[in-house]
Amino acid sequence: MHFQDLIEKKRDGGTLSPGEIEALVQGIVSGEVPDYQISAWAMAVYFQGMSQEETQNLAIAMSKSGDVIDLSGIQGVPVDKHSTGGVGDKTTLVAIPLAAAAGVPVAKMSGRGLGHTGGTIDKLESIPGFQVERTLPQVIEQVNRVKAAIISQMGNLVPADKKLYAIRDVTATVDSIPLIASSVMSKKLASGAQGIVLDVKVGRGAFMKSLDQARQLARTMVDIGQGAGRKVVAVLSDMNQPLGRTVGNALEVREALDTLQGRGPADLEELSVLLAAHMVKVGGQADSLEEALLKVRTLLQTRAGLMSFQQMVEAQGGSLDLTRPDYGLPQASEIAGVTFTNQGYVKAIDALAVGRTVMRLGAGRERLEDRIFPEVGVELHKKVGDRINSNDIVATIYARDKSQLAQAAAEIKQAYTLTDTPPDPVSLVFDTIT
Amino acid sequence: MHFQDLIEKKRDGGTLSPGEIEALVQGIVSGEVPDYQISAWAMAVYFQGMSQEETQNLAIAMSKSGDVIDLSGIQGVPVDKHSTGGVGDKTTLVAIPLAAAAGVPVAKMSGRGLGHTGGTIDKLESIPGFQVERTLPQVIEQVNRVKAAIISQMGNLVPADKKLYAIRDVTATVDSIPLIASSVMSKKLASGAQGIVLDVKVGRGAFMKSLDQARQLARTMVDIGQGAGRKVVAVLSDMNQPLGRTVGNALEVREALDTLQGRGPADLEELSVLLAAHMVKVGGQADSLEEALLKVRTLLQTRAGLMSFQQMVEAQGGSLDLTRPDYGLPQASEIAGVTFTNQGYVKAIDALAVGRTVMRLGAGRERLEDRIFPEVGVELHKKVGDRINSNDIVATIYARDKSQLAQAAAEIKQAYTLTDTPPDPVSLVFDTIT
Repeated sequence: MHFQDLIEKKRDGGTLSPGEIEALVQGIVSGEVPDYQISAWAMAVYFQGMSQEETQNLAIAMSKSGDVIDLSGIQGVPVDKHSTGGVGDKTTLVAIPLAAAAGVPVAKMSGRGLGHTGGTIDKLESIPGFQVERTLPQVIEQVNRVKAAIISQMGNLVPADKKLYAIRDVTATVDSIPLIASSVMSKKLASGAQGIVLDVKVGRGAFMKSLDQARQLARTMVDIGQGAGRKVVAVLSDMNQPLGRTVGNALEVREALDTLQGRGPADLEELSVLLAAHMVKVGGQADSLEEALLKVRTLLQTRAGLMSFQQMVEAQGGSLDLTRPDYGLPQASEIAGVTFTNQGYVKAIDALAVGRTVMRLGAGRERLEDRIFPEVGVELHKKVGDRINSNDIVATIYARDKSQLAQAAAEIKQAYTLTDTPPDPVSLVFDTIT
Repeated sequence: MHFQDLIEKKRDGGTLSPGEIEALVQGIVSGEVPDYQISAWAMAVYFQGMSQEETQNLAIAMSKSGDVIDLSGIQGVPVDKHSTGGVGDKTTLVAIPLAAAAGVPVAKMSGRGLGHTGGTIDKLESIPGFQVERTLPQVIEQVNRVKAAIISQMGNLVPADKKLYAIRDVTATVDSIPLIASSVMSKKLASGAQGIVLDVKVGRGAFMKSLDQARQLARTMVDIGQGAGRKVVAVLSDMNQPLGRTVGNALEVREALDTLQGRGPADLEELSVLLAAHMVKVGGQADSLEEALLKVRTLLQTRAGLMSFQQMVEAQGGSLDLTRPDYGLPQASEIAGVTFTNQGYVKAIDALAVGRTVMRLGAGRERLEDRIFPEVGVELHKKVGDRINSNDIVATIYARDKSQLAQAAAEIKQAYTLTDTPPDPVSLVFDTIT
C-alpha cells in the first residue's frame, strides 16, 4: 500500500475504499505511516471531507485498532452518555444516577479535562477517596450491583485515534466534522455500550460554534453508531453561557448533588432530565420519551437518583456526607464576591472566557502535566435574562491564593454583557437527532 | 512562534507575513518545525495557494537558508538557464555553449535525473573523464577563461528547500504552483546568477499538463526573480512528445553535438537557439531578441558553439573526439530496430511513456541510489507528423542486455499513436513571459 496514493486520492476529492481505510488505520497504529503523511491526509480531509460511509469505516476501523471492551457480563442493555464538551457541563453527574435509578446499567469511561473544558474524571476526583481506576471485572460487578460506574480509561482503547488526535491537535486539523465524529464514535464503539446518548454542544463555549455545524456533527455520529448496530440519539444543546451556575470540580459535584435533590439550577435540571430520559428509552426501560421523562422526573422527586450517586461513590471508595451543605467536598480558602457598579439585564455570559478563567485558577490544565486544584472555580449567581442591580453580588470566585482574586473577578466581569431591556429568552435544547 | 497558528492561518485562506515566512523557513532548517507540521502546512498551501508576495518571500527566505554563491568574481553578467524537466531535453547542452560563444558567462549548477526525466549531470558524465565536482574558485577561473561551466551542487545550498521538497515528495503536495515556483527560484537565487532564462515545459511528459498551469508557473517564477532584482525571462515549450530524437545520456550528448554542428533535429535546434538568444539578451550581449537570434544563428553556422562545448569539456577533464561520428562516447552492446506492421501518420508520441522505458533500460533512476548506464536509451526516427510505412524502422533501442529489447520495443510501439490523415502541425514554443 502506497499511503501517498491515499493522500493524493483524498486531496483530489476521492473516497477511500474500506480496504484503504483499514490499511491507513493499521499503518497509523503500526507506525508504518509516518506522522507527516498522517497530517497531510488529515489536512486533505479538512478540505475535501469524507463520505458518510468513509467516516463510518474510519470510526469502525479505529474502534478495532486496540482493546475492545466486552460488556456482555452486564445484565440489561448497557448505555453510554457522551458530551462534546462545554463549560460547567456536569450533566453526566446528574443524568447517569437518574438513568441508573431507572434500571439502566451504565459503565462509562470518561476523560480528564484539557483547555477550557472540564473533565468528568477530574470532577469525581474532588470527592475524597473516589477511585477512578477499575478493572473490567470490577466494573461489571459494580454495575450489576449498583447499576453505575464512571471510571477513567480501561485497557489500550483506540490507539489509532490517540495517535491521529495527537497529530491533529498540533496541525490545525481538529476542526473537521468527519474526523471529530469518527474520533468520538470510535471510542464509544470500543467501549462496548449498546445504547449511546450524545449531547452535542453548540455555541461560543463549544467546539461547534453554529447550529448547522452541530447538526451535521450529530447526524454523522448518529449514523455511524446506528450503522454499527447501536441505538444512538443526539441532543443539540446550548453552550453560549456556562451550564448551571458553577464551574470548577468540587463546585460542580456540589451543584450536581443539589440538582439530584431537586434544588439545582433550572437549565442543568432540564437538560440532565432530558438526557437521562433518552438513556432510559435507549436502554429499553421505557417505550416512549414521554414515559421515560415521567419516570426520570419521579426518580428526581423521590431522590432515587441521589441514592444511586451515593451508591456509586461508595462502590468506588469515595465518601460524601449528604447531611452537610458542602457534602464534605474540598473548600477553597480564598473566596470573594464579584459586584458590578453598573446595572441592567444579563444579555450574554461568554462561556469560553469563564472556562479560561477557571482553568487559570487551577481547576483545569493548560498542559497535560498541570496539577488540578479541586476546590477552585467560579459560581455565577446571575445568568442570561437575570436583572443586576448596583452592588449585587453577580458571581463568587473560589481561589487558592488571594493574589488570584482581583484578576479573576475582572475577567468574570468582562465575560458578562449587560443590556438595558430584558433580552429575548434563550433556548437550552435546539434539536434531537435520532 | 506557534507554527500551528501559521498552519491555521493558511488553512483559513490567510496570507503569512514576511516575518512569519522567515520564521517558518528558519524553523524548517533548524528542525524546530516538525515534519508533520511542514506537511500539513504544505497541504493547506495546496488548497489555499499563496499570494505573489508570500511566494516571493518564501523563495527569498529559502534562498538564504544555506550557502549563497558569490559569482562577483566572474567578468560580465553571469546568466543561468533552467528547464522544469522533460524527456529528451538536452537544450542546456546546446544553448549554454552558444551563449558562451556569444560572450555570456555561464556558471551552471545542475541536477541528476530522477524518475522519467533525465538530468544534465548524468548526461555530461557519459563523456569519458568529465568532472562535475568543482570548487567555487575553480568555477570562477574556468568561466573567466572559457565562459562556461556545468557542475553539480556546490556547498550547502537551500537546505530549507531540500527538507521541504523531501516532505512534499511523499505527501502528495508537489503539485502546487507557488511551492514549485518558490522551490525552483530559491535555488536559482542562491546560485548567484544575475540573469535567468527559464524553459517551462508543457504537456504529457512535463509536470505542467496544461498551458494555463504552465503560464501561471512561469509568471510566478519570473515575478519572483524580477522582484529579487534579477533579469528573468521564461519560454513555454512543448513536452507532449520527446524533444529531438534521442532519449538517454550518451545518445543525448551525441545529438547535442550534432546540433552544434548544424545537423541536429529541427525542434531541438529551434528551441536551443531561442533559449541561447534569450541568454544573450539577458546577459547584455544584444539589445533586442532579433539581434540576439542573429548572433546565435551565426555562432551555430561557424561552429563557435561546438568549440565552446569542447573547451568546457576539456576544462572539466573530459575528452571528446570530434572527428568520430560517435564522438568517442560509450556505445550500447545491444541494438535493435522497432518496426510497425501498420502504417499511417504519427499523431502523438507519449513522452512520459518513452521516458519511463528509457529509465527502465538503465538511463535513469527509480530510486536515488540506482546506478546509471550512460550508453542505453532510445532513438526516435519518426516524430509527430511523420509518415510511417510498413516495415519502416520507427525507433532504435540501445540496451545493455538482449533480454530488455523486446519489452522496450513493445513499450515504444505503444507510445506511438498513428492516424490515417496528416495531423495538424504542433507548436514547439507557446509563449514567452517577460
